[in-house]
Parts: sequence; structure tokens; C-alpha cells
Amino acid sequence: MDTPNAAPSRADQLALLTQAGPGTEMGRLLRMFWHPVALSRDLQPGEAIPVKALGEELTLYRGESGTPYLVGGRCRHRQTLLHTGWIQGEKIRCIYHGWQFDGSGQCVQRPAEKEARVPPNCRIPGYPVHEYCGMVFAYLGEGEPPGFELPRKDVFEAPGVLIAVTKETWKINWFQQIENSLDAVHVSFVHQALRVGPFGDAVTTMMPDLSYTENEAGIEQVAVRADDNIRKSDWTFPNNNHVVVPGLQKGDPWIDFGIWMVPQDDEHSTRFTIYAMAPGDEPANERFRAYFRKFGGYNADEHYDELFHQRKGPSEEDFLAGLISAQDYIAQRGQGVVADRRQEMLGKSDLGVVTLRRVFWRELDALRNGRPTKHWRKRAEPLTLPTQPGRSRQGTPAPVEEPAS
Amino acid sequence: MDTPNAAPSRADQLALLTQAGPGTEMGRLLRMFWHPVALSRDLQPGEAIPVKALGEELTLYRGESGTPYLVGGRCRHRQTLLHTGWIQGEKIRCIYHGWQFDGSGQCVQRPAEKEARVPPNCRIPGYPVHEYCGMVFAYLGEGEPPGFELPRKDVFEAPGVLIAVTKETWKINWFQQIENSLDAVHVSFVHQALRVGPFGDAVTTMMPDLSYTENEAGIEQVAVRADDNIRKSDWTFPNNNHVVVPGLQKGDPWIDFGIWMVPQDDEHSTRFTIYAMAPGDEPANERFRAYFRKFGGYNADEHYDELFHQRKGPSEEDFLAGLISAQDYIAQRGQGVVADRRQEMLGKSDLGVVTLRRVFWRELDALRNGRPTKHWRKRAEPLTLPTQPGRSRQGTPAPVEEPAS
Amino acid sequence: MDTPNAAPSRADQLALLTQAGPGTEMGRLLRMFWHPVALSRDLQPGEAIPVKALGEELTLYRGESGTPYLVGGRCRHRQTLLHTGWIQGEKIRCIYHGWQFDGSGQCVQRPAEKEARVPPNCRIPGYPVHEYCGMVFAYLGEGEPPGFELPRKDVFEAPGVLIAVTKETWKINWFQQIENSLDAVHVSFVHQALRVGPFGDAVTTMMPDLSYTENEAGIEQVAVRADDNIRKSDWTFPNNNHVVVPGLQKGDPWIDFGIWMVPQDDEHSTRFTIYAMAPGDEPANERFRAYFRKFGGYNADEHYDELFHQRKGPSEEDFLAGLISAQDYIAQRGQGVVADRRQEMLGKSDLGVVTLRRVFWRELDALRNGRPTKHWRKRAEPLTLPTQPGRSRQGTPAPVEEPAS
Repeated sequence: MDTPNAAPSRADQLALLTQAGPGTEMGRLLRMFWHPVALSRDLQPGEAIPVKALGEELTLYRGESGTPYLVGGRCRHRQTLLHTGWIQGEKIRCIYHGWQFDGSGQCVQRPAEKEARVPPNCRIPGYPVHEYCGMVFAYLGEGEPPGFELPRKDVFEAPGVLIAVTKETWKINWFQQIENSLDAVHVSFVHQALRVGPFGDAVTTMMPDLSYTENEAGIEQVAVRADDNIRKSDWTFPNNNHVVVPGLQKGDPWIDFGIWMVPQDDEHSTRFTIYAMAPGDEPANERFRAYFRKFGGYNADEHYDELFHQRKGPSEEDFLAGLISAQDYIAQRGQGVVADRRQEMLGKSDLGVVTLRRVFWRELDALRNGRPTKHWRKRAEPLTLPTQPGRSRQGTPAPVEEPAS
Repeated sequence: MDTPNAAPSRADQLALLTQAGPGTEMGRLLRMFWHPVALSRDLQPGEAIPVKALGEELTLYRGESGTPYLVGGRCRHRQTLLHTGWIQGEKIRCIYHGWQFDGSGQCVQRPAEKEARVPPNCRIPGYPVHEYCGMVFAYLGEGEPPGFELPRKDVFEAPGVLIAVTKETWKINWFQQIENSLDAVHVSFVHQALRVGPFGDAVTTMMPDLSYTENEAGIEQVAVRADDNIRKSDWTFPNNNHVVVPGLQKGDPWIDFGIWMVPQDDEHSTRFTIYAMAPGDEPANERFRAYFRKFGGYNADEHYDELFHQRKGPSEEDFLAGLISAQDYIAQRGQGVVADRRQEMLGKSDLGVVTLRRVFWRELDALRNGRPTKHWRKRAEPLTLPTQPGRSRQGTPAPVEEPAS
Repeated sequence: MDTPNAAPSRADQLALLTQAGPGTEMGRLLRMFWHPVALSRDLQPGEAIPVKALGEELTLYRGESGTPYLVGGRCRHRQTLLHTGWIQGEKIRCIYHGWQFDGSGQCVQRPAEKEARVPPNCRIPGYPVHEYCGMVFAYLGEGEPPGFELPRKDVFEAPGVLIAVTKETWKINWFQQIENSLDAVHVSFVHQALRVGPFGDAVTTMMPDLSYTENEAGIEQVAVRADDNIRKSDWTFPNNNHVVVPGLQKGDPWIDFGIWMVPQDDEHSTRFTIYAMAPGDEPANERFRAYFRKFGGYNADEHYDELFHQRKGPSEEDFLAGLISAQDYIAQRGQGVVADRRQEMLGKSDLGVVTLRRVFWRELDALRNGRPTKHWRKRAEPLTLPTQPGRSRQGTPAPVEEPAS
């Protein structure tokens, strides 16, 4: 692009959506928001793990007090991975020569330098973190982070609510996951593949009427298949979707399903999912807990060959979280690691995808041209997501019948 | 190359031989012929598998009637791999949004579009296929395919003939395999490595007198080692070789061995082999069947480390098909994934390789300059391949003795 | 660089240190010295193995007499890997067409050419080799090799000495290994990680006073932590370090530890280590032999995931060689496959690294400008490396305490 800030070509515009590393336009935009970077349970006090988000290598550690800290991935000194070192109190010390950093990334000790004071310019990145519902969120942008409001949902905070969280890293660009979340049609096909779980069963193969409405938090998606078959998604900018899925057994409460799709780098993205169930009777509660104890570790990406070449899905008993992931994975990973959108042919039913891209391009355009981006904020009135009466489980998938043309 | 159609440099000429993707010169030439793309037994009615040939990702599926179809690898809509979808009748439906294609690649239904008729420009590639001797052949060129004649051999169609087919994909450029097939000298060495099987035993380590004669179908190779040790190969353009090898036991009929070497992409090629034996007595026939039931799945590429670092070949009992493959693999894969021919030093005994390249360069030159390429056709008179008296199995390989110089 | 022989930029200077392939400046410099390329025990008479050193693919074989030879990796004819062929007498024959080479790389027979004499220009590289202490050393430079003196140490040749050798190839640039060997500070931290072995225990976490002195053979490193805690390293140009480590049990003799760090290619390097122990009582001698029989095959690179993500080191019993390797590996591999030195921030305590680079840059500069490089030679007076009194093993690692600032 020779002219500064010239409108990007179609191919460049498509590329903007998929590149989220430091210094990219999407990278700048995404850095204005909180993102989950780890599950709380994967980080014990006094431990450090490497995490990768928005193209950055990072060290996440929990001080001995239990407080989590997110700092750069490598020591300022000679670039060794910092997570292999030691936590002492609330600080982390490099394995190589013992340089010690506090949770803001400031180096506070360089033992072999025998100096009175570490110079202030000896530091690595440090980012604010916030734990919520068993996930560690971080703000990777500059300056003060926004208040921790946009990721919150009343249903995740309801009294007595049961929460389970999962995490899957896939070899796939993040934007394929985002597009899928505003693509109501796919449910009728993708979630009939391998076998029909309660989610696919609740939706049926009827083709929906679609509407997409932007609001203060994101985009509301409505797919009407019949008077008693209306599915809504409460999508929050830039990368969260919130839907409801049937419970584990007829009669169990429906489950709120909140999913963040976070770029790790441009070829890998991580799905962080909250499953929240309003408390039911004790057997229903125990079913929920037992299910996630047993199946909460499924990662479709570890089953590529089974899913793509053997048509073998997760265990028969893992008919909810694992099955939905496996189905989505086949559809999205099937597009390639980074889908070649120059080859695509969109139709009217891709309204969600088109709406989504327009919103992103509008925001990126504002950023590029120095105009303010939209102030996204938590919905004033929470959206109630309708549950369906549900249908009897079908024995075999029956994708759309031939229409009477 | 600044001047259009200028004669390529030596390095460019060598590169022409190894690049067979869409749009390359070799790619155009190879697309004028039928090539095997799968074994029939790997494709059940109502199933789809991904195949790759000549650098193209493809979907091969068998309609419920049993008829095979070959179409593009990805849905026209949003580029999802089509083989993960559903076969319904003779059509295939994408897993993502249910777009349905017929066997010619024409899209015939887009359920969510709720349209009266799919526009005719909504299509993906579709290619003619032909099953023969347990293999699915395809024509990936433009326009009408040639009649299915060149791949046929009378010996494969003889009354009562026993046929076995195998398939091995190797991480190796296809042209190394082709050159090996017109290189009669290698038999005296390569097929003595690991251990001596009936094939190596039949040939001995004597150095042959060589002749190569182009005919209407390809090139006839004759290697004379002694009056009673004459080996002929009936090589068909562009990528089939036909030789005979001794049977599984002394007295069993010799086996016709027809091998196609097909570029998958420029770093992988697939050997499709037909083993055909004129019926012998029942024990001989059962030996043939039992052998291929047990060993027909060997793929040398899965044993790289054993073959290159442990000198460990296939099972002692797999002394024919597996052993020949393993030996050829070491020699050819040992040249690198794509041999660097700029470093080679050819001799008079490389006459077959030289002849072969000249024929290819002549054909590529015609294509590049808009002249007609040769009309290759099935030999009017089938060549009878001489069998040898055979020699007693040697206990240990004894590569060439020091000549009295 | 437009001006010939202009001083390289900082980034170029750093790159010079890490690139050792044929034709590079470092490659030229390193080729003036003997380097280990294999362990003697990995090469039986009549066998060939592929080795890689300084970016070159090579064939190492042992003639039937037991003499080792090092020649090019590929046959001159059609580039097949030569190690897959046959040793006959003192010569090696290619598997593909039987071309035969002597140990100097000269082709001596091309059987199918039926010629009176092989032309003298038909040859591949051939390099001098020298076996020493169970290692095969080679000289990959041009012309006459220097005498085999610089790699020798009196302690390796002492009467009755017990010798064990090991070899580990790591996915890491060689210069990270070199820098680590002249970095005395790291011992206080790195060798406290995972757990404290006798080596870390002997050194303690006190910060040393450092001195580095160039001598006729390399650089002498002295780290003084206390009057009774002085550690010296006798470092030999360009890639050997010699230190002492405590024996396997209190009272056992200390072990001389000589390590060569050889570039395989720019992303892999091999550590060849000699452990030499002056003979003790028979139980001590048997402990030494038994330890290396059992643990001499450890390679940290095969345990990347355990070391980086599970904090799981080698077996508790492998508390010397394996533990030291694992600890060093975490620190050095943690810098990346090729450390990005443009991001580093060196301190006064990096004196060894700074000294080391200056010596290399001085030598490279001489080479680039056609001046003579230094004549490195074996030390006239062998350095006695002091052993420490040793300390009681600590239960848990205790990296540096907070200093009273």
C-alpha cells in the first residue's frame, strides 16, 4: 500500500481479519479488551506456566499468596524462558542467572551484578490479570485496562450456579472460530455429523430465518426455525459467544455456554468455554459435575486423524461438550489452518459472517484513521436465551431432505 | 526467462521434470493421461475419502450405487473439506452448510439459500474416473479424456488371472521413481541389499548390456546379462512400468508386475502396483492370495528409520513385494526428497535415464511451443517379457566382485 | 555489505557466531580444528553411519580392518546416501549402482561403466580422522590437518584412568552451548534446578568473583566464591571445555569432564563428553562403570516436554551426567533454537561471554582480512583444576537469598 491509510484491497482486507500479532491492526484492536489466557486450575500457587496469546510469548505465574501475574515470556538478560525458574513470594526468578522480576515485569534483582539497585529500564512486559469463573483473563493493551465488565454475564454469577470450564487449543486461525459463532445455519448440518447430540437434536435440520442486530455489547443472532424453535446467541465483541444448550438428560436444566476464541498465534487459537447450569435437583447437579470431571479435558485437535480419516468421534458418553467441539472442529479445521477466503462464495444465508466482518472492518478502519472505536459495554438488560421444547433423539443423522423444488 | 519460450537453462530443465502441480508444464503434460488415484477396496459405497494427485486436493466418493466420482477437495462455499460430509444417492453434501454437489462437481442444492435453482457457475472441479483391476483411475485434464486403453495390458485381463494391488505413498518426488524404472543396472545392486529375494536372485550381479527403444506406447528396455539372463521392461509413457518377477516358490508362475508412479505433490508420490499371476495349481494360487492378504499393506515410507539407520528390512516372509519396495525406497529416498540432479555425474550406463529425460523434454517442448505432443497408444503387439531360469538363492549378498582390471 | 570486508553491523556480527556451514566465516574458522563426529562404539568394523557436522552430510565407515574413514554423504553418481551401501575391505560401495570409493573419497570402481580406469575427477570429499578416548575426531578443513594435540589432556591419558563417553544431539545452535561453558555464574542457578546434584552442591549459590584469561590453548576461567570454593575451567579454543565435578559418592575421586560442542547444522549441535576418573578403590571404579552403563545414553533433547512443561528431570539415580545435561538444556534450549541476541541485556557478570565473543570476532576478522589467525596449541603446563571440599546435600534447591540491600 503506497498511499498511507488507503482503503485496503479485498485480499488485504481479508488478511486483516486473521492477523492478530503485535503491531498488526487486529492485534491493536484486540488488545483493547480482556481475554482469557489460562484456566485457573492449571496454575497452582508458586507455579509458572508459559502461555501464548495474540502472538506473544508470556509467563503466567501465581505468587505464593495465590495471586496470578502475567509477564513477558523471556528473561530480559539472555532470553531464557522465564517459566522454568522459581517463584519466591510474589516474584519470579530466572533459572539461568537468577534475575528476579516482580509481577509488573520490573527486574528487582540481578544477583551476580552485585549492584545497589537494578536500573529501572531493566524490565519485561507485565499485564493486568483478573480471575473470573475459573479463568485467568488478561489485558494485553497499553495504559489502563477497561473495567472488567464486558466478559461478565449474570447467568455465570447466579446464586448456586454450577460452573465448569474447559480449554482447547486448535491448529486453526481464530477468525474461523469467530465466523462460526455467528453462523446459525451450520448447526443444522455440523451438529448432525458423527452423531446427533442433544444440541443438534434441539435444532433440527430445518433452515432458519436469520436476523443479526448490533447492540452495545456485540451482535444478537436470532435463528427462527419454527414458532417453538427459536435460537438466540448473545455475541459479545470481539470474541465471545453465549448460547444455551440442552442439559445432560431430559429434564435437567439447560446449560449456558460461553465461549471465548482467542488467537494464540495466527495458526493456533484457543477456545475457553464456561458451562454454567442453574442448580437442579441433586442427581442433575451430580451428573453435571461428573460429566465434566470425566470429559472436561477433550481436545478435538488431538484427534485430527480419527475425525478426518476414520469418522470416529469422542466417546459415546461425551455427547455434549466433546461432541460439539469435535463437530465444530471438523467444519472449521476442514477450511484449512487459515481459510483461503479469496476462494469462498458467500450467499444470503451468510448474513452473520458478512455482518461480523463489516463490524470488524469498521472498527479497524477507525483505528487506522485515528478515529475513536466504538465503546463496547456490557448489555444493560441481559438477554434471555430461549430454550426449546427439545425433540426425541434420532437414531441416525438425517441431513436436509431434498426440497420440493 | 525473459524471452517467451526461450530454451530453459539446464537447472530449469531439470526442475521441469519434478514439478507437476496445476499450471506447470509437466502438470499439463501428465494431465493428458489416466492415472490411478486410489485402490478400489479403500472406497465403500456411500463413502468419501480425500485423495491428492498432481498437486490437487480432491474428494473421491462412491455413490450408493457403487459408482465412484472424483470432485474438488473443498466445498465451493467456504472451502471446507468435502469428504467429511454425507453421500446421498450419487451426490455428496458438505458438512458445514449442506451444499450438495453431483459427481460432475455441479452444486445442485444450497439448503439455506432457499432458492429455486442453484446458479450454474456454482461448481467445483469434477473429473472422469474409470475402475480397472481394483484401481480407480482418473483423468485430471481438460476436455474429453482419451479412451481407457494405454493403461491396459493383456496379461492383467487374461482368463483366470489372479490380481493383487497395493499402494504406497512415499515422501519423494515422483521423477526419482520414474528414473529408477528405466535404470536396469540398479537391479544388480539395490535388489541385493538387506537380503537377496527371488527378484535379485534372478538377475545376478553381472553387468548388463543395455538397449532402450522408443515405441508407440513408451520405451522398451532390454538388459542382457547372459544368453539365459535377459530382462525386458515394457515401460509405458508417462509413468507405468511393466516387468516380470519370479513367483513365490520355485515352480510357481512368474508374476507380472505393473507399477504406476503418480505425483501426489512435488514431495510425495504414490506407487500403485498390480501383481498379476496366470493361474497355477491350487497351492500356488493360494500362496499368492495368502501372501498379499498378509503383506499387501507394507509401505516402506513408514519404516524410514529401520531402513536407513537399522538396516532392518520387512519381515523375512515378505520377500517379494515388501522387499522390492524396501530396497527401491532406500536407493531412491536416499537421493533426497527431491534429488539435486545438478550434482549428479551420469555415465554411459545411465542410458535409460538419459533416454527418458529426452523423451519428456521433447514432449514438454512441444507443449510449450504449441506443437502437438506424441499420440501415445497401447502397443499393437503385446511384448512378451522373458522369464529367467532362476538361480539358487544365495545365502548372503555378494555385490560385484573386483574386476580383473 | 556493499564495501568488501567492511566491519559487519552488530546484528551481522552476532549472526557470524551462529552460522557454521560450508562457506561461512565461522565455518572456515572451525574447519581449522579437529572435532569429534561420532563415538567409537557406534561404529563396528564393516559398518557405515551417516554423520552431520559443520553443516555437511557425511558418511563415516569402518573398514574391515577396523580403521575409520570419513567421506562425503552422497554418491558422486546420483546422490544416494552412501552409508546404505556395502563396506568391502577398506572401501565403500553405493547401494544404487555399485560405485566404489576408497577412504579418501576417490571413486575406484564404476561396475556398469565397464571402463579400464575411473577418471580421477570422479570423487567425493574425504577427511582425515583420528580416534581418541573412544571418540572419532575429524578434520574437515583443506590441506594438511594440524597435529592431533589441541584436543588432548593429560588427565585423559593418565595410567589406569577410567573413561566413559557420551553424546547428545540437541535442537539448539552450537554457540549457546559455547557461551554457557564460559559463564561461571549459571552454575549457582541452573545446577540448582530440578534438584541439587553433587555438582550444584559443590558450588553453592554464592555469587563468584570472575576472571577470564586468554592463554595459548584457549581461555582460563576462574570463579571464586570463597577461599575454599574456587572453580576453574580450562577452556580450549574453539569448542571444548574442561572442568571437574564431584564423584558419584563422597570419597570417590572427582571426575574430569571434557566436553566438545560441535555444530551439526545451525539448528542442531552435538555434545561429546569424556568423563575421566583417576582409578579409586574397586567399589568406586565399579560405581563409575555401572553408572555410565546404565545412564550413558541420556539425551535431554528427547525429554523436552518433561523438562519444560512437567518439571520432571532424569531418574533420581542419574544425578550426575543426566542431571547436569538436563539442567543445562533447560537454560540453553530455553533461549530458543537460535537465541535472539539482539534482545539481550548483558551485565558485568557476563564477562566470560563478552571475552569469548571478542576472541571469536578477532579470529574471524583476521580470516576475513587475510591476516593469520592465532596459532592455538596445547598448554605447555597442564592446569590443575581444584576440587572443593564439598558440602552436605541440601534437601531442596535454595536459589539466592534476598541480599541485604
